[in-house]
Amino acid sequence: MAEKIFEIVDAAGSKYEYRPGLEDVIAAPTTICYIDGNKGILLYRGVPIEEMAAHATFEETAFFLLFDHLPSRKELADFDAKLKAHRELPGAVIKLLQSFPPLANPMDLLRTAVSALGLLDDDPENDSVEKNTARAMQLIAAFPAILGVIQRQRKGLQPVKPHMEGSHAAHVLQQISGEAADEYAAKVLDVCLVLHADHSFNASAFTARVCISSLTDMYSAITAAVGSLKGPLHGGANTEVMTSLLEIGSLEKVEPWVMERLKNKGKVMGFGHRVYKTYDPRARLLSQYSEKLAQKTGNMKWYLMSREMERVMEREVASRGIYPNVDFFSASVYYYLGIEPELFTPIFAVSRISGWTAHVLEQSRNNRLYRPDAVYQGPMNVKYVPIENR
Amino acid sequence: MAEKIFEIVDAAGSKYEYRPGLEDVIAAPTTICYIDGNKGILLYRGVPIEEMAAHATFEETAFFLLFDHLPSRKELADFDAKLKAHRELPGAVIKLLQSFPPLANPMDLLRTAVSALGLLDDDPENDSVEKNTARAMQLIAAFPAILGVIQRQRKGLQPVKPHMEGSHAAHVLQQISGEAADEYAAKVLDVCLVLHADHSFNASAFTARVCISSLTDMYSAITAAVGSLKGPLHGGANTEVMTSLLEIGSLEKVEPWVMERLKNKGKVMGFGHRVYKTYDPRARLLSQYSEKLAQKTGNMKWYLMSREMERVMEREVASRGIYPNVDFFSASVYYYLGIEPELFTPIFAVSRISGWTAHVLEQSRNNRLYRPDAVYQGPMNVKYVPIENR
Repeated sequence: MAEKIFEIVDAAGSKYEYRPGLEDVIAAPTTICYIDGNKGILLYRGVPIEEMAAHATFEETAFFLLFDHLPSRKELADFDAKLKAHRELPGAVIKLLQSFPPLANPMDLLRTAVSALGLLDDDPENDSVEKNTARAMQLIAAFPAILGVIQRQRKGLQPVKPHMEGSHAAHVLQQISGEAADEYAAKVLDVCLVLHADHSFNASAFTARVCISSLTDMYSAITAAVGSLKGPLHGGANTEVMTSLLEIGSLEKVEPWVMERLKNKGKVMGFGHRVYKTYDPRARLLSQYSEKLAQKTGNMKWYLMSREMERVMEREVASRGIYPNVDFFSASVYYYLGIEPELFTPIFAVSRISGWTAHVLEQSRNNRLYRPDAVYQGPMNVKYVPIENR
Repeated sequence: MAEKIFEIVDAAGSKYEYRPGLEDVIAAPTTICYIDGNKGILLYRGVPIEEMAAHATFEETAFFLLFDHLPSRKELADFDAKLKAHRELPGAVIKLLQSFPPLANPMDLLRTAVSALGLLDDDPENDSVEKNTARAMQLIAAFPAILGVIQRQRKGLQPVKPHMEGSHAAHVLQQISGEAADEYAAKVLDVCLVLHADHSFNASAFTARVCISSLTDMYSAITAAVGSLKGPLHGGANTEVMTSLLEIGSLEKVEPWVMERLKNKGKVMGFGHRVYKTYDPRARLLSQYSEKLAQKTGNMKWYLMSREMERVMEREVASRGIYPNVDFFSASVYYYLGIEPELFTPIFAVSRISGWTAHVLEQSRNNRLYRPDAVYQGPMNVKYVPIENR
């Protein structure tokens, strides 16, 4: 582990060891996910991400993360049936979403919808493992329909009833577009959902774990995670990658744009990661899908621009351990799939809800309230001065 | 600092130092609040809590936490005017709250209302310090009216228009009861709000700081904090203290009830604190108000039962550093003020929102994404087994 330890001095002059952002500090044990950021290794419950992406569906992946074993045929069929049974959103949540301005931030709408689902729970005081596991499945099932309502009201359209056949990924696309999903598009989105499903103690999963550690409820923890994912230092980055590509507009403008950014010490979104100091294995897989979609759609532009940006960034900053991250190629992939950039971060959430719920269940099984310390650097024992003397 | 360090072994057999719940781990520097848990000292921005409780109003305290100096007369008048200008809740939020079952959990309603306020922000993309400070004031101002809607619909009543004169504490009571607040009751609640305003990196403030560290928005962070506060290991405890007192029902039953609980290794709510290993200074202050209210209302029961519970607990467990915490006497105080137990945790939030917003602003000024490490204890490099072979 790279050591990033600073010395910090409190008001009394005592010195402490301090790792900003809790970098390399162990928050808890886990069996969900393993990352080796120096070697570019990512395992879900022990299985390399490359194998998961090549063979597993999102439904299998979500089951695996939640239940710690790959499902049998029967288990997978049961799990799939449960997800399908909750594809349709309660009418109250649809109405709620439609009561806000249609162009409101989709992540704000998603956060509010998850919080509202907590108010509609049929047995809110029941915090058994069984009930929370059922809630996990219901939340995973509900996210595509929430996105569907959001996207369709952005276009002034009514939500569509979910189809009851087809994969979770196909269901996502159908809810957004209103039409049966293209088979290849659904396959690509399915891989994207597998790749984004978990990433150990990332900021949103950690937010969920901190939140649930007071023994509050699953909805509170997931609502908190959605709010965290929204941030541009986290899931919000994929939208910003596409915004950059759209702003640059053409292949030959990529290099001068990147050089100008770097000169002004600006951030190039989609590059660099707290954990990976080498190529993010997810980015490698996603770049292949970006290329395939470019060829299939006959529009190479976004893929080639991404490659060009990667080339310039590699030349300039790879020596500092800055490489493309998962958000970099997911942007062009989603765009090729016809998803608008404002929906990229919610699509990330459609996948990551599987990891979040697994983290909430794991934290609940072996809980201790997260209550770190702070180093106080303000004045000590100040007298209260009455207002007439201020 | 008491050291609570465990050794933890990862899947590869490497050993790490691990402090469950991040106990004694420094998450960040702060100038908001100082706690010495061994000596029972609590300072807000350097001023002892006893002086704050004796002299400051909640409005002064909130200003102090947000702006790092006690307000001048003019500053306080301006701050008060801004709070009053936002006492009334947007109609859309009232409608939203009224669309849920009236007896839904008040913390779930509060969480959803805060999330919804984010959707009604007039300039959501603006994340300047000025705008976030304005949002902090608006949120502090809005909480009493949210509680008012919640409490009144519990009773099948319509919300009442806020009075524009009177303190924030009087406004809270008026919103809940629908009538102008009794002067002494408002004074006591004001002290309660001062005492609950902040407590350094407690679980909800830490949740808010972790959430905002992705550079997401203020509403996401506060929504997350509300969800965390709900938990019985955190703010939810004050409701449970009153539930215990009501369940016990009479003075002579306190001792056998406590002894039975302890025998069965059950938790006695309102005792023990991660940070305080001595008497919580806030509990000491609150006990005095519980006594005064008991005398004033001529109903000594809840105060005397609390004292009796404290006596038995002190005899049995004080040697283990378990003392009454802030939730213990706030329960009887709120009950004497005519607030029903289901509203105790939201009342805590009405105060703590001042600390949360101060923490969000402090974190934003000197941010680093919270992204701790985990120790992976699962299997390594498991082969993906095709479903037909499972």
